[in-house]
Amino acid sequence: MEGNLLQHIQYPSDLRKLSPHQLPQLAKELREFIIDIVSVKEGHLGASLGVTELTIALHYVFNTPDDLLVWDVGHQAYGHKILTGRKDNFDTNRQLGGISGFPKRSESEYDTFGTGHSSTSISAALGMAIASQLKGDLDKLHIAVIGDASIASGMAFEGLNHAGVTDANLLVILNDNAIGIDPSVGALKNYLTDVKEGRNPRDNNMIKSLNFEYSGPIDGHDLPTLLKELERQKMLKGPRFLHIITTKGKGLRQAEEDQVKYHAPGKFDRLTGEVLAIAEEGLPPKYQDVFGLTLVELAEQNEKIIGITPAMPSGSSMKFMMELFPERAIDVGIAEQHAVTLAAGMATQGMIVYCNIYSTFLQRAYDQVIHDVALQNLPVIFCLDRAGLVGEDGATHHGVFDLAYLNCIPNLIIYAPLNETALRNILYTAQLGLEHPIAIRYPRGRGETTDWQKPFEKIGIGKAHQLKEGYTVAILSTGTIGNNVIKALAQIENPGLFSHYDFGFVKPLDETLLHAIFTKYENVITIEDGVITGGFGSSIATFAAQHNYSTEIKMLGVPDTFIEHGTIKQLQHYCGIDVNSLQDIFSGY
Amino acid sequence: MEGNLLQHIQYPSDLRKLSPHQLPQLAKELREFIIDIVSVKEGHLGASLGVTELTIALHYVFNTPDDLLVWDVGHQAYGHKILTGRKDNFDTNRQLGGISGFPKRSESEYDTFGTGHSSTSISAALGMAIASQLKGDLDKLHIAVIGDASIASGMAFEGLNHAGVTDANLLVILNDNAIGIDPSVGALKNYLTDVKEGRNPRDNNMIKSLNFEYSGPIDGHDLPTLLKELERQKMLKGPRFLHIITTKGKGLRQAEEDQVKYHAPGKFDRLTGEVLAIAEEGLPPKYQDVFGLTLVELAEQNEKIIGITPAMPSGSSMKFMMELFPERAIDVGIAEQHAVTLAAGMATQGMIVYCNIYSTFLQRAYDQVIHDVALQNLPVIFCLDRAGLVGEDGATHHGVFDLAYLNCIPNLIIYAPLNETALRNILYTAQLGLEHPIAIRYPRGRGETTDWQKPFEKIGIGKAHQLKEGYTVAILSTGTIGNNVIKALAQIENPGLFSHYDFGFVKPLDETLLHAIFTKYENVITIEDGVITGGFGSSIATFAAQHNYSTEIKMLGVPDTFIEHGTIKQLQHYCGIDVNSLQDIFSGY
Repeated sequence: MEGNLLQHIQYPSDLRKLSPHQLPQLAKELREFIIDIVSVKEGHLGASLGVTELTIALHYVFNTPDDLLVWDVGHQAYGHKILTGRKDNFDTNRQLGGISGFPKRSESEYDTFGTGHSSTSISAALGMAIASQLKGDLDKLHIAVIGDASIASGMAFEGLNHAGVTDANLLVILNDNAIGIDPSVGALKNYLTDVKEGRNPRDNNMIKSLNFEYSGPIDGHDLPTLLKELERQKMLKGPRFLHIITTKGKGLRQAEEDQVKYHAPGKFDRLTGEVLAIAEEGLPPKYQDVFGLTLVELAEQNEKIIGITPAMPSGSSMKFMMELFPERAIDVGIAEQHAVTLAAGMATQGMIVYCNIYSTFLQRAYDQVIHDVALQNLPVIFCLDRAGLVGEDGATHHGVFDLAYLNCIPNLIIYAPLNETALRNILYTAQLGLEHPIAIRYPRGRGETTDWQKPFEKIGIGKAHQLKEGYTVAILSTGTIGNNVIKALAQIENPGLFSHYDFGFVKPLDETLLHAIFTKYENVITIEDGVITGGFGSSIATFAAQHNYSTEIKMLGVPDTFIEHGTIKQLQHYCGIDVNSLQDIFSGY
Repeated sequence: MEGNLLQHIQYPSDLRKLSPHQLPQLAKELREFIIDIVSVKEGHLGASLGVTELTIALHYVFNTPDDLLVWDVGHQAYGHKILTGRKDNFDTNRQLGGISGFPKRSESEYDTFGTGHSSTSISAALGMAIASQLKGDLDKLHIAVIGDASIASGMAFEGLNHAGVTDANLLVILNDNAIGIDPSVGALKNYLTDVKEGRNPRDNNMIKSLNFEYSGPIDGHDLPTLLKELERQKMLKGPRFLHIITTKGKGLRQAEEDQVKYHAPGKFDRLTGEVLAIAEEGLPPKYQDVFGLTLVELAEQNEKIIGITPAMPSGSSMKFMMELFPERAIDVGIAEQHAVTLAAGMATQGMIVYCNIYSTFLQRAYDQVIHDVALQNLPVIFCLDRAGLVGEDGATHHGVFDLAYLNCIPNLIIYAPLNETALRNILYTAQLGLEHPIAIRYPRGRGETTDWQKPFEKIGIGKAHQLKEGYTVAILSTGTIGNNVIKALAQIENPGLFSHYDFGFVKPLDETLLHAIFTKYENVITIEDGVITGGFGSSIATFAAQHNYSTEIKMLGVPDTFIEHGTIKQLQHYCGIDVNSLQDIFSGY
């Protein structure tokens, strides 16, 4: 019978033609479909396997897309996509021009709200529910599916706190698997574990305190129970909360056993489940590992060093320090706001805090960077991983705004290393007693050389460097995109025209060098892997205007539009900052 | 005996020489001292009156400044300032060069953490506590005093959620008076009311669920009880939570009875308590009222219009719509993140949402503006009150970063009205069916004319306007600072040199007009009441560079430094954008 059911389903209307006893078979097929494709095409695996039954049950019981379903974060929405019109192009998932790896409004009416960052679902669904109420649409149900890692974030609490005083037709489903990307942490997680294990009276729980009707916990893999409970929920009114217990990676042994690795395992053998070994020998390190391993080296020497990560011990490689110095390396959960102000509090007591947050997620703590760190000039060291274009995760995850949104903050130093050595040395320099906070931004992926673990060298704050000397055109790059410049210059016919300067420091700018550059060259080209508006190029243009230089400036970087998903190389090409595009541009001089 | 005790106290060491039975008398004197000065010098009144006993008890029982005390928000810290070395210059509160109206690290070692924005205290105090633990300083106590409005914000929850899994020497004191600036809202507030009124079993409460040792509620005005309880708390270990009940404005009848008005009442009669009437007759309206009253006009005509405020019904004048259309005007509490994504959710269902957030507080929802609104191109209407320099509230509250941090966001329209009429017309235009989200930013304080309630006129998106024609210099202003330009031009000897253009739209820029300007004039001056870096001036410089214009550009605005407190006029002078400074600059051409 394998494959018999799923092949007839394109939309939930097809699904609803099945009888309830066929659904476990469909769940089996849906899992296999996901595994078949993700094993080859890569993507997020564990989360979708964990909610296979829930996905089927939701679309079976509720009248989607009229009932509005919001998937928090969206890692878990593959089954949803497959059952809502995107089965046949699911193999384009996360590819340039293909479907997005996250729910996306422009892709399907079943994707009621785009997600990617966590903890937005309750607010979004509540907004929809209040709108429905005002329109007199009282039967429409609004459902937020949120994980236990995401519900511990402050924004989710704000949503619950508001929803509890409304009579919105809102069902919040807590998908409790005790893990986000890494295992969940925090007091709420412990509380939920107690509830699951029967150590807390269910009739007096936190969620009820917020005026939700609480149900559960129930087994989220038990379809008959799920169907019955969702049917019951359909009849209820007002804000209600269903606690279901699932296993991330359910149905693939290795994914259940190593949930962190199988969150997004890369290619794996669909039959054995084994992740296909990538020959790492001879490859340069990932920038995250340059951070993680260097931090350990520094922490060994300096006991004032502390590491903070909001829920990314693996992704940031903070895990190395967490293993060796568990007292000094802290995973605070999905709580970027808290992470930053916690770091500020520690810094007041003389601690040297490396607060590692993905560039895109630092947007969540923007006020804390300004108000708690920069205003007080506390020397917190922000390490922004996944800066620039991140590739397949797409528009929600590109770290392209950071240079622009940080540039306007007084007191803050901003540095983008050219390569592993520069990253390593700025991490070293930052703990030698900076008088200001610093943001160090570096990209997803690998560096340039295997020979990176060299003795530390102190970096002069605010100094830019000439990498190559030429005659008429000065290329000013910041960060690792400078390596594209180096490669492009190596391949053009007229390299002698070009000087190339590495502006690691976007702030403070090396004004002495800039004066020399604007005095000497006929043309200036700036290049960054971030938005041009308000970023490095804009800073250079502002400098030039303020000092009345009339040198022609060409600014390269990310244009003023949201960039979709694709490989980093494809997206760089779209922005005109890949090696080939740069070659073409340089050849035009 | 009046005045006998306080006059001998400069620091907590003096306070600790008193016997416990003298403290109620001191509380009386401290209240009178605050009332005496605030009645004349203005400032925040009610919050400090509410915590007078708590302030005395904290400094009496705990060993400040070695024990570290963090005041959330900081409105309530006047008593603290007076008892910690700032009694004699308390009359300089909030004045240029005087002490800050908020705790400030550079001002006193007793101000362990600068505040101003809410809900940071738990994170900051926890950071300090973890640092102390690592340093082996196990006896040092870390205390966060937080109000019931602030603790409902997501960031505070994140702090509690982390603290609950530590054994940090942390005492969180909930100062529960059921009001922030406006009355508190939300499910947590209702829960706390139940606890206060004995309707919840105290041994099984929310706070205990987060693994805090919970005590209370106790009467926060009863000094013997407070002293006894704080002495007991001193002996406890790990994270603990004390719930105290206070009355905002305690000790001044009118302040207790009208807690909203007496949050910051302006000048009042110290004996009768009556707020001194300001002759409003003949004055132009406050911009907040132009917003609030215009919104009502629009909402009367269009039932899809919704208003959202995060805890600022009075300050934003959203209260007018809340009174008339309670179903469609929502105070979500101090929850900027939720407010923005709630608005986005509503917008998906066709609602026209005016989300009113002070410019400085939108920093709290930066990610939500990018990820939930702009990325999905949902036409939410952000109304940013208190944009630009706000005056006496100082560095924590200036809305000077908004143009810079919003400018880099694709899809977003940014508009700064020149005056009331322009604000009124853009509010009208925004509900006619924009295809993009828009941010409308306007300042604290009053407009330009009493004759502002004219028939609505639609504004052309992206169009700038010439206000005055001249020969060689083009002045490009954005927003209400343009009125300083108008006034300065009226007072100089050579006005004929200057053209003046009003660039209401910072994004999209009127590029057609810009080309004309850069082609025609020898000099361009930009002026904005925000940071130059990444703001309007930078945008103009970037435009000029991208199009190879070599016109000289002078950029005026807020320099790259945090601006302290003072009157708006004083601070504009500091930045060189007050009328007199502009006169001097213009006269130099």
